[in-house]
Amino acid sequence: MPQETTSERGDVPIPPADSKRRPCVVIIGGGFGGLNAARALKRASVDVFLIDRHNHHLFQPLLYQVATAGLSADDIASPIREVVRRQQNVQVMLGEVTSIDRESRVVRYEGGEVNYDYLVVAAGMQTNYFGNPQWEEQAPGLKTLRDALTCRRHILEVFEQAEREGEGSEGRGLLTFVVVGAGATGVEMAGAIREIAYQVMVKDFRRIDPTRARVLLLDAGPRVLTGYDEELSERARRDLEKMGVEVRLNAMVEAIDEEGVTVNGERILAKTVVWAAGVKGSPLAETLNVELDRMGRVSVRPDLRMPEDDRVFVIGDLARFENEDGEVLPGLAPVAVQQGKHVAENIKRAVEGKPLEAFSYWDRGKMATIGRARAIAEIGDWKFGGLLAWLAWLFVHLLFLIGFRNRAYVLMGWIFAYVGMRRSARLIVDPPKERAGALNFWQSPRADEVHAE
Amino acid sequence: MPQETTSERGDVPIPPADSKRRPCVVIIGGGFGGLNAARALKRASVDVFLIDRHNHHLFQPLLYQVATAGLSADDIASPIREVVRRQQNVQVMLGEVTSIDRESRVVRYEGGEVNYDYLVVAAGMQTNYFGNPQWEEQAPGLKTLRDALTCRRHILEVFEQAEREGEGSEGRGLLTFVVVGAGATGVEMAGAIREIAYQVMVKDFRRIDPTRARVLLLDAGPRVLTGYDEELSERARRDLEKMGVEVRLNAMVEAIDEEGVTVNGERILAKTVVWAAGVKGSPLAETLNVELDRMGRVSVRPDLRMPEDDRVFVIGDLARFENEDGEVLPGLAPVAVQQGKHVAENIKRAVEGKPLEAFSYWDRGKMATIGRARAIAEIGDWKFGGLLAWLAWLFVHLLFLIGFRNRAYVLMGWIFAYVGMRRSARLIVDPPKERAGALNFWQSPRADEVHAE
Repeated sequence: MPQETTSERGDVPIPPADSKRRPCVVIIGGGFGGLNAARALKRASVDVFLIDRHNHHLFQPLLYQVATAGLSADDIASPIREVVRRQQNVQVMLGEVTSIDRESRVVRYEGGEVNYDYLVVAAGMQTNYFGNPQWEEQAPGLKTLRDALTCRRHILEVFEQAEREGEGSEGRGLLTFVVVGAGATGVEMAGAIREIAYQVMVKDFRRIDPTRARVLLLDAGPRVLTGYDEELSERARRDLEKMGVEVRLNAMVEAIDEEGVTVNGERILAKTVVWAAGVKGSPLAETLNVELDRMGRVSVRPDLRMPEDDRVFVIGDLARFENEDGEVLPGLAPVAVQQGKHVAENIKRAVEGKPLEAFSYWDRGKMATIGRARAIAEIGDWKFGGLLAWLAWLFVHLLFLIGFRNRAYVLMGWIFAYVGMRRSARLIVDPPKERAGALNFWQSPRADEVHAE
Repeated sequence: MPQETTSERGDVPIPPADSKRRPCVVIIGGGFGGLNAARALKRASVDVFLIDRHNHHLFQPLLYQVATAGLSADDIASPIREVVRRQQNVQVMLGEVTSIDRESRVVRYEGGEVNYDYLVVAAGMQTNYFGNPQWEEQAPGLKTLRDALTCRRHILEVFEQAEREGEGSEGRGLLTFVVVGAGATGVEMAGAIREIAYQVMVKDFRRIDPTRARVLLLDAGPRVLTGYDEELSERARRDLEKMGVEVRLNAMVEAIDEEGVTVNGERILAKTVVWAAGVKGSPLAETLNVELDRMGRVSVRPDLRMPEDDRVFVIGDLARFENEDGEVLPGLAPVAVQQGKHVAENIKRAVEGKPLEAFSYWDRGKMATIGRARAIAEIGDWKFGGLLAWLAWLFVHLLFLIGFRNRAYVLMGWIFAYVGMRRSARLIVDPPKERAGALNFWQSPRADEVHAE
């Protein structure tokens, strides 16, 4: 428990600058961390100003199912306004934050700016191409709904293109799918693509044999799902191979272009490449003017504040938090959720003049799915796989989805997908038109007056 | 019943050109007409080649609910391949038809061509701006999923923009919505936009009052829903006005631009304009080289063939079919469905050397919805409105949706929307990226060999 000490040590709670008004808490990001922080501030006597560049909270763990046409975009996302609609002390703003000015305690975003008494930075991570930004064009990542819809569209289109070309199309890699990175997202994507080809597409096409689609899962490391116990990793690899996924470990990607990838010197023709090899902190972190770690994360104190600023908290994937054993917490949804709730408690304490408390992560375990009836799970010392782990995975993911509507839709989608062997969200929809000038979306005449008071 | 006569009279069924192979039926369009024709040919000894420029069949009557965030795009559309997956004599091709060459009996599409023995043109209609194509940019129509998603995105964005600007935003027409055309689509859109503002948005925003959103419904004619009995029209108008929609009749739109519309000389500032004022035949009809009517439709004989070509049938919205009383059938889904089934029967008859039969439309009535618990219906001489008509509308639309999955999702969406007063499909999603060069989608090396044999 931190003790109350001097302000210079950074351990003293900060009273609001002006006691006549309620302190303003600005939260950047409506992901697991930010949204949970906002909700946990429901009864606090603060005004909350929640900014996100999307109008929705996204349940990222199921994003790969949107990318592989199992679920609709609408199923795994909730409008942020909807989530906090009953919470009168929260104002939601759609806007991309451009910079944080800690000196003047101002957050600037496209369309306006807002002053804060306390700031919670929960801006998350983005896809990391490790110095090869040109690969993004050919190998989309999987962090946003847009990414997922781009992937989905591409996967559906290559099957259509192959059908148009008929049998000769295989040589060009039209039905070769390469997933780079064998973490949870990569494993899930590879398994799901193979399942679509085998169980769904096979009945839909007449001139091609979708089961001849190749799915390759590449990783630079020596095993899949490195975050897990070695035995479970090995089990996941075997499961993937049983499903027909070609797993290649110690595989360094050297090039990606329109025609395919080069791995350990070998050329693989592939029209579809999905990048799940890594993430890095939001570029917003750079505007905090502090040193970041190799992944672009901000180191935080035990109470989740930056060491350099008593009013700024960083939570979720973007925070580098070392627990008491010196381990850095991984970028998982449960960590962000718990940190979001904790930061809200600490802000309440600060407002009330009480000392802040250190965060500690309650690890309930982790799980990854590989395919229908195949998954692995680690809950404390209990490590298991197969149908039981898969059912646990389904249950936990349903449980943590935000909103009853999403739960109902996702459950229904799964019944269709796993019982009916269908992927019904298989639409190729042309993107909505962006109307030139019709709505000058970010340039508002009164954009400078957007304080939350 | 048509009698068998000479080929010159056009009443003789056409045997396949080459009796060693099964005749090939090419169907252009996977809407209500084309898809029902394909399905009704299930047991016929013909090969069916179904081309559509989208990979999905769209349930257009519910499109306005996607545009107003009540349903997901995935809910009201089914992949065409999925619908006919069990039907081994159907080959589905994703492609935009560019021309029909009746001389050589070839249909050309982007990516290939296909020969036909019988052709069914079911290409439908597109939005008609009556000589003002420049209005399309500001006032999207409502014919495709893309249109609906464009509308939805725009409607959600103006509310966000208004919230960003705060109270002063009303003067600029940010929250003024103009719907042009008071047919079924226009009436449904106007009612739904008003409902969103009143029932959904009102709880979501803090700085603006969404109930002050204005919704105007304009029509050049003297009443709404002209296809209906005058008394029902009047009732619909009253219902709309009770809901807060401003209905303006005999209103000629003279200009549409970024700032608003000019109607009968009056300037109305409005950032959102939806065009539901009319449709015209697909430009494909022009490549048939026959005279078209004012709406771009192809006149057909009683057996649904073009007068000029014994092998070409035209059905659905694109066909101008006069019934025995000299009335032209309206462009409604039930007409297209029945014509699709009828054309399949006539093709089977032709293949078997039997005379073709005349089509007659069994009018089961029509209905239009205005808002929650408000609708009108005409079933024969029975004309009614209110809750009963609305429940009938819900029931009939659920019943005619293709696919159990869609029915389940739409039903669930309605329960959330009408009981829970939510529109949960309220996501603003950036459109998927189109990857330059990654997939040269329409130019296949073997594209010229795409015959259905």
